Amino acid sequence: MSEAFESRAFDAVDVIRTKRDGGQLSDPQIDWVVAAYTRGEVADEQMSALAMAILLNGMTHPEISRWTEAMIASGIRMQIPRDAVGGRPTADKHSTGGVGDKITLPLSPLVAACGAAVPQLSGRGLGHTGGTLDKLESIPGWRATVTGDEFMAQLRDVGAVICAASDDLAPADKKLYGLRDVTGTVEAIPLIASSIMSKKIAEGTGALVLDVKVGSGAFMKDVDRARELAQTMVALGGDHGVRTVALLTDMETPLGLTAGNALEVRESLEVLEGGGPDDVVELTLALAREMLTAAGMEGVDPADKLKDGSAMDVWRRMIAAQEGDPDAPLPEARETHVLPAPADGVLVRLDAYAVGVAAWRLGAGRARKEDPVQAGAGVVMHAKPGATVRGGEPLFTLHTDTPERFDRAAAALAEAVTIAPGDSRPDLRPLVIERVG
Amino acid sequence: MSEAFESRAFDAVDVIRTKRDGGQLSDPQIDWVVAAYTRGEVADEQMSALAMAILLNGMTHPEISRWTEAMIASGIRMQIPRDAVGGRPTADKHSTGGVGDKITLPLSPLVAACGAAVPQLSGRGLGHTGGTLDKLESIPGWRATVTGDEFMAQLRDVGAVICAASDDLAPADKKLYGLRDVTGTVEAIPLIASSIMSKKIAEGTGALVLDVKVGSGAFMKDVDRARELAQTMVALGGDHGVRTVALLTDMETPLGLTAGNALEVRESLEVLEGGGPDDVVELTLALAREMLTAAGMEGVDPADKLKDGSAMDVWRRMIAAQEGDPDAPLPEARETHVLPAPADGVLVRLDAYAVGVAAWRLGAGRARKEDPVQAGAGVVMHAKPGATVRGGEPLFTLHTDTPERFDRAAAALAEAVTIAPGDSRPDLRPLVIERVG
Repeated sequence: MSEAFESRAFDAVDVIRTKRDGGQLSDPQIDWVVAAYTRGEVADEQMSALAMAILLNGMTHPEISRWTEAMIASGIRMQIPRDAVGGRPTADKHSTGGVGDKITLPLSPLVAACGAAVPQLSGRGLGHTGGTLDKLESIPGWRATVTGDEFMAQLRDVGAVICAASDDLAPADKKLYGLRDVTGTVEAIPLIASSIMSKKIAEGTGALVLDVKVGSGAFMKDVDRARELAQTMVALGGDHGVRTVALLTDMETPLGLTAGNALEVRESLEVLEGGGPDDVVELTLALAREMLTAAGMEGVDPADKLKDGSAMDVWRRMIAAQEGDPDAPLPEARETHVLPAPADGVLVRLDAYAVGVAAWRLGAGRARKEDPVQAGAGVVMHAKPGATVRGGEPLFTLHTDTPERFDRAAAALAEAVTIAPGDSRPDLRPLVIERVG
Repeated sequence: MSEAFESRAFDAVDVIRTKRDGGQLSDPQIDWVVAAYTRGEVADEQMSALAMAILLNGMTHPEISRWTEAMIASGIRMQIPRDAVGGRPTADKHSTGGVGDKITLPLSPLVAACGAAVPQLSGRGLGHTGGTLDKLESIPGWRATVTGDEFMAQLRDVGAVICAASDDLAPADKKLYGLRDVTGTVEAIPLIASSIMSKKIAEGTGALVLDVKVGSGAFMKDVDRARELAQTMVALGGDHGVRTVALLTDMETPLGLTAGNALEVRESLEVLEGGGPDDVVELTLALAREMLTAAGMEGVDPADKLKDGSAMDVWRRMIAAQEGDPDAPLPEARETHVLPAPADGVLVRLDAYAVGVAAWRLGAGRARKEDPVQAGAGVVMHAKPGATVRGGEPLFTLHTDTPERFDRAAAALAEAVTIAPGDSRPDLRPLVIERVG
């Protein structure tokens, strides 16, 4: 009734009704509702109702683009002038999150070793997927927070910074993400896409590669939804002057052989030393090539930089620049427990979600934002799909400081694997499923 | 992610997701979410997301029935034993709200005069429709609040009580209604039906007649939606042992010739004196007959009780029992302003919503719950559709204590009428459109 009595320019209920009734929000409506929500004038219960209406009724691309713009405008938009970072072009990567996804760790120094600047603002983990900052914080001394000046100097001198995003970057997104998490409104492609892209555009990168995970361990379970998300984000990048490309990659099975903070740092070091699991190396190189291409550096072959040690050199300087000790021993869990393979045969399925939940229950992840994580906790896998296993031999090793958690972690893994007769071939899709861009 | 990590019996996000994804809520989910919301364990932003999902995805009848049951269970359920009220059967009426809808005022004493007990728990107005309590509070001395003992004694001795609902009656509904009002989730039939019926069932009436308004001045603009609401509520009454019937009635045009608190009391007194506008008399008698039939008193003709003064006698006793002075002069607005008919012809349209907004702007209604209302403010109409009018003669008289409001009220009425050439016949639907029950 307020439209008849009051004379405010906008009213939250009118905005909600527009979307609820299947209409398109106007630019001024979007600008107002995002800004007023950030200021606290639009209440949480109003924004959650709007988020549910967006989830169920969708948004057109112009609406999503404007919504993203409004989220960026809620905070500062960084600039990374090329001459301030030693002439390096900027390129960043974002993953929608998966189990064992430590790719940022070898990838950032690798791309920096190729000559680009990698401004990688990262987050902590929540739920069954780990967070890049949690992993790096297992390195003694390393700190996630850097000042703006430190950030620019490290980009120029080292070429890569992995650090926590400033609270000034898209504060509307921070507030809205927390709200969506408790109101069943996370799974809306317009809101996911604008959340990711507002932060990445505000951080000032010139090129962006998105790793959109698909499968049991990922947020997106099916390729069609993942493709829709990828296309939406690639278009948003284009709308805002960021050269953006996306790879849809498999997350039915974990990446590599480890899920857990220090365990994944150790595996990343193997890759930087020129070894490591095939899938981690393959995806690191695929994403590095996309980042270099998007940054206008097609000619550089990142595989060389793994072999010649220059990526490892950047890693060591990157860790040291944030007060980490690259030579310090990594923390190890106090207790381990081995789970054997239940039968002889070929491992044809290793479920990423189950492994993620097991690692989480062991202490590698958190249920609430304020929970601590254990640096040494997690799951080591002794076989990946396609491998032959023998009943009774180790299949998983569980790591934790709190051994009372073994039972619940083992329960998560009870249905995680399928072992088929010895002549079976698992029906595995390629790691890189599709390219969008 | 909480389902994997935590072991709570219920989780608000799971309930929201169930409805968001088009599923049916289980009885335990409904019981838990309504109770936990009332206790404050489910947050406003979670309930508003659920309300939006209910609005957009609907509810099955078993879900609506259980939801209503859970709302009733959030507070006390009154009992009105027949022998405690002098052997009278109980019957109540509820209107979904319209402009000029003063029917409760003559109807309650009329039905009581016929021998039934009428336990009429009412509300205050918000927006362009007035509230029964606001109207009665224009009578000097009258108070809306009665104790439980006073309520039962008045029902027994007078036969009718119109009073404010206790806070103990369906508190879940009170909280949820306030939330829906600010989150664009009022217009969900499952939530409207359960809101109305939870209070009416909890108040303990044995029979209930619903006046479901349809038209510009009503909440429901079209007959199909109104019918769906009526059918839902009639079924809910049956589920919970209350004999319930509904009339769909016209609200394209205001009821009677007045909209405003004291103005409507005065018009109600005309009806109780055996006069009054035809439409008000017709609807009062139609609803009275339905109430008497639902209460098992088919033989009584309420028209007799208007003619012989017995309804007026009950009115006087009902007002006096709540400390009102039935003989005191009613308040009058300090200022009046006449709006003339713009042309000669036949009035073929008089828009209820416009008249409601004008009365509201003059001070008869409130924009916020805590606002005061003016007893004397409102609109008097000098013609109804079908009448011949002459250009320049009075069409509306505006009443207010705050004459600076005349302009905005007049603006609301600028497009309120259509005057057609003198031989036109307005295409009016009947006042009682349909009966559901």
